[in-house]
Amino acid sequence: MIPESFLQTPHRRWNALKREWVLVSPHRTQRPWQGQTEDTVKPAVLKYDPTCYLCPGNTRAGGHVTPKYPGTFVFENDFAALKDDVAPASFDDGAGLLRASTERGVCRVLCFDPRHDLTLATMSVPAIRNVVDMWTGQVQELGAREEIAYVEVFENRGAMMGASNPHPHGQIWATEHIPNEPALELASQKDYFAQHGSPLLIDYLAKELSEGERIIAENETWVALVPFWAVWPFETMLVPRAAVSGLPALTEAQRDGLAAILKTVTAGYNQVFDTPFPYSMGFHGAPTDGEDHPEWVMHAHFFPPLLRSATVRKFMVGFELLGSPQRDITPESAAETLRQAVKKAGV
Amino acid sequence: MIPESFLQTPHRRWNALKREWVLVSPHRTQRPWQGQTEDTVKPAVLKYDPTCYLCPGNTRAGGHVTPKYPGTFVFENDFAALKDDVAPASFDDGAGLLRASTERGVCRVLCFDPRHDLTLATMSVPAIRNVVDMWTGQVQELGAREEIAYVEVFENRGAMMGASNPHPHGQIWATEHIPNEPALELASQKDYFAQHGSPLLIDYLAKELSEGERIIAENETWVALVPFWAVWPFETMLVPRAAVSGLPALTEAQRDGLAAILKTVTAGYNQVFDTPFPYSMGFHGAPTDGEDHPEWVMHAHFFPPLLRSATVRKFMVGFELLGSPQRDITPESAAETLRQAVKKAGV
Ligand SMILES: O=P(O)(O)O[C@H]1O[C@H](CO)[C@@H](O)[C@H](O)[C@H]1O
Ligand SMILES: O=P(O)(O)O[C@H]1O[C@H](CO)[C@@H](O)[C@H](O)[C@H]1O
Repeated sequence: MIPESFLQTPHRRWNALKREWVLVSPHRTQRPWQGQTEDTVKPAVLKYDPTCYLCPGNTRAGGHVTPKYPGTFVFENDFAALKDDVAPASFDDGAGLLRASTERGVCRVLCFDPRHDLTLATMSVPAIRNVVDMWTGQVQELGAREEIAYVEVFENRGAMMGASNPHPHGQIWATEHIPNEPALELASQKDYFAQHGSPLLIDYLAKELSEGERIIAENETWVALVPFWAVWPFETMLVPRAAVSGLPALTEAQRDGLAAILKTVTAGYNQVFDTPFPYSMGFHGAPTDGEDHPEWVMHAHFFPPLLRSATVRKFMVGFELLGSPQRDITPESAAETLRQAVKKAGV
Repeated sequence: MIPESFLQTPHRRWNALKREWVLVSPHRTQRPWQGQTEDTVKPAVLKYDPTCYLCPGNTRAGGHVTPKYPGTFVFENDFAALKDDVAPASFDDGAGLLRASTERGVCRVLCFDPRHDLTLATMSVPAIRNVVDMWTGQVQELGAREEIAYVEVFENRGAMMGASNPHPHGQIWATEHIPNEPALELASQKDYFAQHGSPLLIDYLAKELSEGERIIAENETWVALVPFWAVWPFETMLVPRAAVSGLPALTEAQRDGLAAILKTVTAGYNQVFDTPFPYSMGFHGAPTDGEDHPEWVMHAHFFPPLLRSATVRKFMVGFELLGSPQRDITPESAAETLRQAVKKAGV
């Protein structure tokens, strides 16, 4: 257990997965807020919205029609940030100061459900299980491509997180190179595995389970916790109990468990401020670079921006952009709030 | 010059200062925006606001009175994220998975001008020069303290960047350890200096000056440019022409030049969308850790969030948080826009 004294004292914590520091200022929560507040989030109410391009039967930008899909639906992003048909080229000034290279990739949009008014928090566990299967199929298919080294599955939820549409959906960006964040996690997990002979996240999870103070929910196959090094006020991580490298390697039971804990966490979030909780979430599975990854344990990150209420968010600005990330409430107190919220949601 | 083909093709660029990648998707700007828009920014109009705790003569939270200061004014942050009187302690689980240590430091608020309605963009160059001198004095004083390894001087401008008050002001967070961002820059600058015998940023600036396509303004002592590896749409960097390690090492002429280029850049920003441009800016000077830093060249970063208009910002969400930073417009096209804006501002 972290010593009591730390819970009232400015300190920094080590993020063992990214190998960087976060500054924690637990005494700072009394600060009055006079800054910008966000619009109250109104949940979608229409089951079918004729103006929504993700609702079955509607026309998207660019003239494509979204078919009348019964469950999940995947399509290539009409405004993809990445393309597959790029002629490889690179540019280097010789001193490593100006370096660029083309990047091939695929961007897809993944509809979770035909109903416009649902979210992971309000969908049934079997329906979420279908989403898990869709994600898995996508990682399998795209990860098998020779030119794809990483498949990033994610969801931007809520207007505050840049989502332009409340229809339940996520995205996949698959890239030729391993992006920065998984690259950091790859290096730390590799080093730890070489030194200890066991995966970093399995040893970390064992410690979290024995301490208990940052655990917010668990089932037979998965655990949800506020990481010791959380940056966002109510940041959480989903970690499987067993060492499994990615979505394609999950057993049936682990997929069921993942669907269940996704519902628990998202429904719990909605109780924290009694509002649809915005977040970005996504999976970090092992790279699909053709190598073995015994060091890698798949996991999901949730990064929600809200801090004090449905309308007051954490700003990652000045010191955070120029120095280090900083948080006010401790991960332990956030975990306590989330445990109560999960209990209240009762799923 | 970066080959023409890169200006239409998804590619990644190397940030030589942080040693990480940024994804550039130049073909993506046609994307329609249906997501969240921000409130229009209204400039402050009152020269003196009786409800502003930074205006001369008013009472702050906690009962302190802001004196009737004639120029600049510095005070300890009433809700400081860092404190100086912390008894050192640390916590380690033995495996490097749960590590924390207390962090000593100082947080101060710096008023730039008694007038509530001014900003760096609208203050006179001599008044900005006073601000430069205030910053310099602060870095000198705090950096001299034994327990302070880094002094971060920054400004959060605009409600969109978490600023709770339009009164022209910035902050200082001085810390016992070097924060993450300067630590990354320290490592890259040290390695480059060891390999080349010249400072990274001096060689980088020479390349930028010879290419010209990312330069937005220059005077005798300073250059403003959009870095080759810019992440934010209109991100810029101010770099001195000569190798100087930090604010305290600047000559009189370099201080004048800094004041002038700060006005040029901020006034230019306000022309881009004809709105007070929000941003976080700050200085990266050499650490005050008692060591010599021949590798370090001081510079300022501006991180402004706006992308398409006064009300549509770039969201650093899903892929950015879980993968790598991503941008749509190229640094070269942003630089072209900013050059025009600076010309229009005519300062
Ligand atoms: O200190 P302020 O202005 O109240 O707070 C602002 O700047 C700080 C330093 O960048 C951030 O940690 C806060 O999230 C932000 O709201
Ligand atoms: O692809 P969308 O939903 O239009 O765009 C959203 O998610 C992307 C991936 O995280 C971000 O790059 C964009 O800034 C954000 O607005």
